[in-house]
Amino acid sequence: MAKVNANYLKLPGSYLFSTVAKKIAAYSQANPDKKVIRLSIGDVTQPLAPVIIDAMHGAVDEMAHAETFRGYAPDLGYEFLRSKIAEWDYQRRGCDITADEIFVSDGAKSDCANIQEIFAVDNKIAVCDPVYPVYVDSNVMAGRTGTYDAATGIWSDVIYMPCTMENQFSPELPKETPDLIYLCFPNNPTGAMISKEDLQRWVDYANKVGAVILYDAAYEAYISEEDKPHSIYECEGARTCAIEFHSFSKNAGFTGVRLGYTVVPKDLKVEGVALHGLWARRHGTKFNGAPYIVQKAGAAVYSEEGQEQLKAQVGYYMNNARVIYEGLKDAGYTVSGGVNAPYIWVKTPNGMSSWEFFDYLLEKASVAGTPGSGFGPSGETYFRMTAFGSYENTVEAIERIKKI
Amino acid sequence: MAKVNANYLKLPGSYLFSTVAKKIAAYSQANPDKKVIRLSIGDVTQPLAPVIIDAMHGAVDEMAHAETFRGYAPDLGYEFLRSKIAEWDYQRRGCDITADEIFVSDGAKSDCANIQEIFAVDNKIAVCDPVYPVYVDSNVMAGRTGTYDAATGIWSDVIYMPCTMENQFSPELPKETPDLIYLCFPNNPTGAMISKEDLQRWVDYANKVGAVILYDAAYEAYISEEDKPHSIYECEGARTCAIEFHSFSKNAGFTGVRLGYTVVPKDLKVEGVALHGLWARRHGTKFNGAPYIVQKAGAAVYSEEGQEQLKAQVGYYMNNARVIYEGLKDAGYTVSGGVNAPYIWVKTPNGMSSWEFFDYLLEKASVAGTPGSGFGPSGETYFRMTAFGSYENTVEAIERIKKI
Repeated sequence: MAKVNANYLKLPGSYLFSTVAKKIAAYSQANPDKKVIRLSIGDVTQPLAPVIIDAMHGAVDEMAHAETFRGYAPDLGYEFLRSKIAEWDYQRRGCDITADEIFVSDGAKSDCANIQEIFAVDNKIAVCDPVYPVYVDSNVMAGRTGTYDAATGIWSDVIYMPCTMENQFSPELPKETPDLIYLCFPNNPTGAMISKEDLQRWVDYANKVGAVILYDAAYEAYISEEDKPHSIYECEGARTCAIEFHSFSKNAGFTGVRLGYTVVPKDLKVEGVALHGLWARRHGTKFNGAPYIVQKAGAAVYSEEGQEQLKAQVGYYMNNARVIYEGLKDAGYTVSGGVNAPYIWVKTPNGMSSWEFFDYLLEKASVAGTPGSGFGPSGETYFRMTAFGSYENTVEAIERIKKI
Repeated sequence: MAKVNANYLKLPGSYLFSTVAKKIAAYSQANPDKKVIRLSIGDVTQPLAPVIIDAMHGAVDEMAHAETFRGYAPDLGYEFLRSKIAEWDYQRRGCDITADEIFVSDGAKSDCANIQEIFAVDNKIAVCDPVYPVYVDSNVMAGRTGTYDAATGIWSDVIYMPCTMENQFSPELPKETPDLIYLCFPNNPTGAMISKEDLQRWVDYANKVGAVILYDAAYEAYISEEDKPHSIYECEGARTCAIEFHSFSKNAGFTGVRLGYTVVPKDLKVEGVALHGLWARRHGTKFNGAPYIVQKAGAAVYSEEGQEQLKAQVGYYMNNARVIYEGLKDAGYTVSGGVNAPYIWVKTPNGMSSWEFFDYLLEKASVAGTPGSGFGPSGETYFRMTAFGSYENTVEAIERIKKI
């Protein structure tokens, strides 16, 4: 008699974005004359850059002829892409990462969710609070998180590291020692960035206690301050304690194209076992490579022309971030993020709960954001707004909020 | 202190195809004048059909403009593709499957490997022997297979169902009752097909004992005999016991494009829990949808023009299968498969081991295939040849073998 994975049954419903969508739908129905502007989800809206479109057309044409047709890709990614990533994202920044330490995938979300598989079930995880839900949910499914308290939104066996205004949304080293530490900078949802010194402290700590840092750098392209680290491998000693995840979704608009990569340095060993080999085995057994066409599109990112076009695209969104940040600040709100990230983290006024503020903005300005409490207990009384809308909508949304 | 998933360490090295490649390389180096023909791997060689190329170019163009740009796809796949799959692959064949029971993915390999996650670790699996290695390896990684005996190639907690000449390569119901049953028809590696009556027997058995059948139909497009089932849902009662995997790799040449789908009927419950909901949760948490461009390419398969072009492509490979099957039969070999599948399963002559025969063919004819023993103990003294080469190479390979 088959049995289900009982850990799945522990998962609370993923109500956040569906509740957001339902509330917007109900509001729109009740107010058919109002146009709701959504600054709620982290999906891009600008078209792919010309250099990427050209690369994709070229690759499609190659697939049309027997001489240039490509079947199964190498499990870990095409060499033409891996070597470009190693050079442009790492070696040019002085990071000692080579092409054979890069694992190309269908996106950072998959990798962030799957990475926990190569670790024992009795590893203890530490996460920032608030946090991108995938880190926690994938560990719930694996049975690593204990029991859930619906009243507080807390799992009994997870170490939560609060990120609040008091610590500038940068977590402190935990009191209890974790085995796996999830960090994400620039951060989703708070938009906060970490200094190189603070990140170095995490690397030193992980090396000292034998923990592995799972570092999500999906929003790295949005870093505008010169002294901030684009990769954890800018820190001394990271090669022996850190895995890094990268996305093409936000720097190149690939949310619907699907491409990412993960770096597992060959020096990273746990119990004497190189994690590089374990991740290679997972990739080879449960994945069959990213599409050739998509990998060619990814390679186009790493050219002078590509960098220029994508810088303009990131600049477009970061201009929206500035509009939101400054507009809300002018209107008297306490805001953070938005400088090195496409997310603005707003403190709700007058002690309103995150959901009360959601309802308030929707009612008074027909603007939707995301309640911070949806990302974890410490997100309560905060609110996330994204810079991924169109410029026109972003300006209008802020004007409306200012008029409330 | 982090700990690794010790189950990974139990996996024997995946030596099969790397050993094949090494032996070919060594032979080529020693015999630079000989051209090796590889009928060893299951990768396609024909270019994508025009209707698919057109669809991809069109989709790339859509991604170039803000009005038609697509970001994140729906987790479970675009409705335009899911509804076509439900109609063309199921409803037109009289199978009661609806669009919302289809989960679009980046390929059948990923789904076959990931499906075990939604089941408890203490489920017992049954597999055919020989077998596609992914079914077993993914369960090894999850800790479901016990200990490995390197001498026999057998896992202590796996139920093996021998498929040999004696049972026409169609497994018998196992003596020990399994919880999860992996079946693949048309079969890789044996090329065997199952009759509808025999498949019905499996469905009845699974419903009786409360097992779930994981049915891999990746090679369905190669079925040429009219009375053979293209889907397990042609059987009465399959909606309450079976999950089905489909690939676009072999019917449409998508090995390098990456698209597949899995069917989880809403009636399929385990311990009272609908597996549809569990798989949806897995998909939503650990996957972010197949690329828009690839899903548009997949939809092009389901048109009169697409079906015609792909029928010709499948016909091309099946003509190769006929050349191999008849050629080897003429040369006195005992062969099977090749009628409803692109694989020909050859009995090695004179009691040669699979690897001895591999060396023999390479030495004497410069032709490479895959040793059957690489797919499981009962594959010993068998040899797999694939029909995915070019026609010219296939003909030459067989001519060479005949001349030995």
